[in-house]
Amino acid sequence: MKLSGKDIVVQKYGGTSVRDADRIKNVASRILRAAESGKRVVAVVSAPGDTTDRLMEMASSITSEPPERELDVLLSTGEMQGMSLLAMAIHELGSRVVSLTGAQVGILTDSEHSRARIKKIDTRKILSALEEGNIVIVAGFQGVSADDNITTLGRGGSDLSAVALAAVLGAGVCEIYTDVDGVYTADPSVAEKAFRIERITYDEMLELASAGAGVMQSRSMEVAKKHSVRLSIRSSLADERKGGTIIMEDTKDLEQVVVRGVTLDEDQVKMSIEGIPDRPGIAAEIFGALAAESINVDMIIQSSAYKTGLNTISFTVSHGRLKRAREILDGLEREMGAERVVVDEDVHKVSIVGIGMRSHAGVAAKMFEVLAKNSINIEMISTSEIKISCVVPGKYGKDAVKALHREFCEE
Amino acid sequence: MKLSGKDIVVQKYGGTSVRDADRIKNVASRILRAAESGKRVVAVVSAPGDTTDRLMEMASSITSEPPERELDVLLSTGEMQGMSLLAMAIHELGSRVVSLTGAQVGILTDSEHSRARIKKIDTRKILSALEEGNIVIVAGFQGVSADDNITTLGRGGSDLSAVALAAVLGAGVCEIYTDVDGVYTADPSVAEKAFRIERITYDEMLELASAGAGVMQSRSMEVAKKHSVRLSIRSSLADERKGGTIIMEDTKDLEQVVVRGVTLDEDQVKMSIEGIPDRPGIAAEIFGALAAESINVDMIIQSSAYKTGLNTISFTVSHGRLKRAREILDGLEREMGAERVVVDEDVHKVSIVGIGMRSHAGVAAKMFEVLAKNSINIEMISTSEIKISCVVPGKYGKDAVKALHREFCEE
Repeated sequence: MKLSGKDIVVQKYGGTSVRDADRIKNVASRILRAAESGKRVVAVVSAPGDTTDRLMEMASSITSEPPERELDVLLSTGEMQGMSLLAMAIHELGSRVVSLTGAQVGILTDSEHSRARIKKIDTRKILSALEEGNIVIVAGFQGVSADDNITTLGRGGSDLSAVALAAVLGAGVCEIYTDVDGVYTADPSVAEKAFRIERITYDEMLELASAGAGVMQSRSMEVAKKHSVRLSIRSSLADERKGGTIIMEDTKDLEQVVVRGVTLDEDQVKMSIEGIPDRPGIAAEIFGALAAESINVDMIIQSSAYKTGLNTISFTVSHGRLKRAREILDGLEREMGAERVVVDEDVHKVSIVGIGMRSHAGVAAKMFEVLAKNSINIEMISTSEIKISCVVPGKYGKDAVKALHREFCEE
Repeated sequence: MKLSGKDIVVQKYGGTSVRDADRIKNVASRILRAAESGKRVVAVVSAPGDTTDRLMEMASSITSEPPERELDVLLSTGEMQGMSLLAMAIHELGSRVVSLTGAQVGILTDSEHSRARIKKIDTRKILSALEEGNIVIVAGFQGVSADDNITTLGRGGSDLSAVALAAVLGAGVCEIYTDVDGVYTADPSVAEKAFRIERITYDEMLELASAGAGVMQSRSMEVAKKHSVRLSIRSSLADERKGGTIIMEDTKDLEQVVVRGVTLDEDQVKMSIEGIPDRPGIAAEIFGALAAESINVDMIIQSSAYKTGLNTISFTVSHGRLKRAREILDGLEREMGAERVVVDEDVHKVSIVGIGMRSHAGVAAKMFEVLAKNSINIEMISTSEIKISCVVPGKYGKDAVKALHREFCEE
């Protein structure tokens, strides 16, 4: 019997979901229930618990600069352990099961060790294993290059393995199991009335992720969007019939709201270089120097003093990159003859995200009004088609989230 | 430039040799010195320290009967960790190096998981890596079946990987690094004057191994013998220019001695089933029943009481199999109408081994005389072409070794 993609479900279990024997057995039961409900299950699994950290430590005890090819070999063993242990647990429950490494599946990547990109996935081995009645467990995070070297996919790699497999298998859905039961309208520890979002678009999810909500890597979401893989974010511990958030294309199935969620990003530092002579290419010089050091810059604002003809350029970076960014800016300040560099470490970024904004005018105005009413000063603003972000003083970050959630998300 | 097999040395490092970062770095330096002396090095490595035990525990925490295919996947990660860490250490010392799994090399085995047999080894990948100037690290103990499943080779599997690689590569020598600096004429803690054997034949080594001397698995030795791979047993901690034992074919290079070594096997239990009616097929019945339970029987003696026509059959087993063997014998005793089953747990087996025996008459007589002079009673005797073994009361085991070593091995 030929399998249809719609019969297949791809599930992904992260490291915390398989961190010990009890958790592994729990995941095995969950997979078996899905199989018993008539689905053909392909489960992608990460390295158990802190395995990857321990392997990194082992490498560090040998050398501070491990060759990437060998580090990929070492790290790939974590997922192999996860997949074989999970297969044992499923076998113990009486089902047919087979585990496959990235190389055994044929997850072909380029040769960029530690950050390889998937080029092609061979589905034959998985499909024939499924057709023989097996549950198929696949090691996440890993692939194989054309010259038969083991590669890894970088941060969030197991999500990517799962999404890519769902895409090539034409699976109806890709279920991402994690330690939260879905995506929330805001952090419930900040906005008490925050609630789980039932359905959300890829674009909204991408903006939420870039605005500070964790859950899933942007790269996986982009692949899911490109191949229309419906994602379901779920808790590996909660009852599988309840909860979860579906990430999908923008269709009429989606509840029509203006703002889908409110996020707070506390890892922001505002840097300004003030009194820069107004000549072309200054901005390119500053951000070119920062990019050369791989410093990601978030919001950027340029303002000019009308009379003096001097400019101020402000932007935000994460705390981890502050030191290096400061050194670069201090150098540029002298070079350019700028007046001074100002750093404000105590700022937060609050954002509202929603595809409804596209068709609703005045959302930004409403946001600024809410903040003003709460006496929260706005230091920087940036907008995309479906997101508005404001940098506010750190002490007001949580208040801003509460007020915006009350205004846009609560009844 | 085409490599000649004689330029290649295969080295094998066991788990204790790579059990932590310091040991791994030590092995890396050793490999590099061999490479700098002009050799092309292929190093086979085991799982570091107690990794394999820990993986077995992980499997046990999931199920008491892990499917062998999945257990092989799990266990194979230990050697992958060993090989990638060792490759990192070699890279750190500035040499080109590449690690290869059993599957990457192309160590093709049958599909008997956990005890696979090597069918064929593809040398192309190793040779081209060597020709590119790499030191090649190969994961021991593992291979791949024709249907691309990971297999393991069973106990002593890394030795086997090394010997088989040396055979197909036509390597001049296969160096087995372990925690002793060679094979001794006897256990030095028993016979004070025991000394390291410089050269020994495969056959002698096989007999020594079966007579209780550890060091190397018989299976690897048989492969070495079949393919004339010269083995060198060495310590991974001692100066590599000193010590070691060469295991080789019987040639004129060998020192001519009658007895190469004396061994003591303390893991012996003597079992006797007495008063068995004398009819054909009785022995087959007894040893068939034991074999059906995979109980290895060592020495066997049948004696018959002249007047009664009743037989006694005695044999030895290891302590670990005593309980099951006893149950089988008790059943057979009733079935056969035998008189009784007698068990003596306090016996040792002392053996002398040497190819010189072939051409020297009277070696056995001399052995019995030495034991008699020391008032050591002989309970059982068995002989092969190059070995004579005697079972003696346990309390005399060490004395027997001392006396025999004095007689046959000391000046």
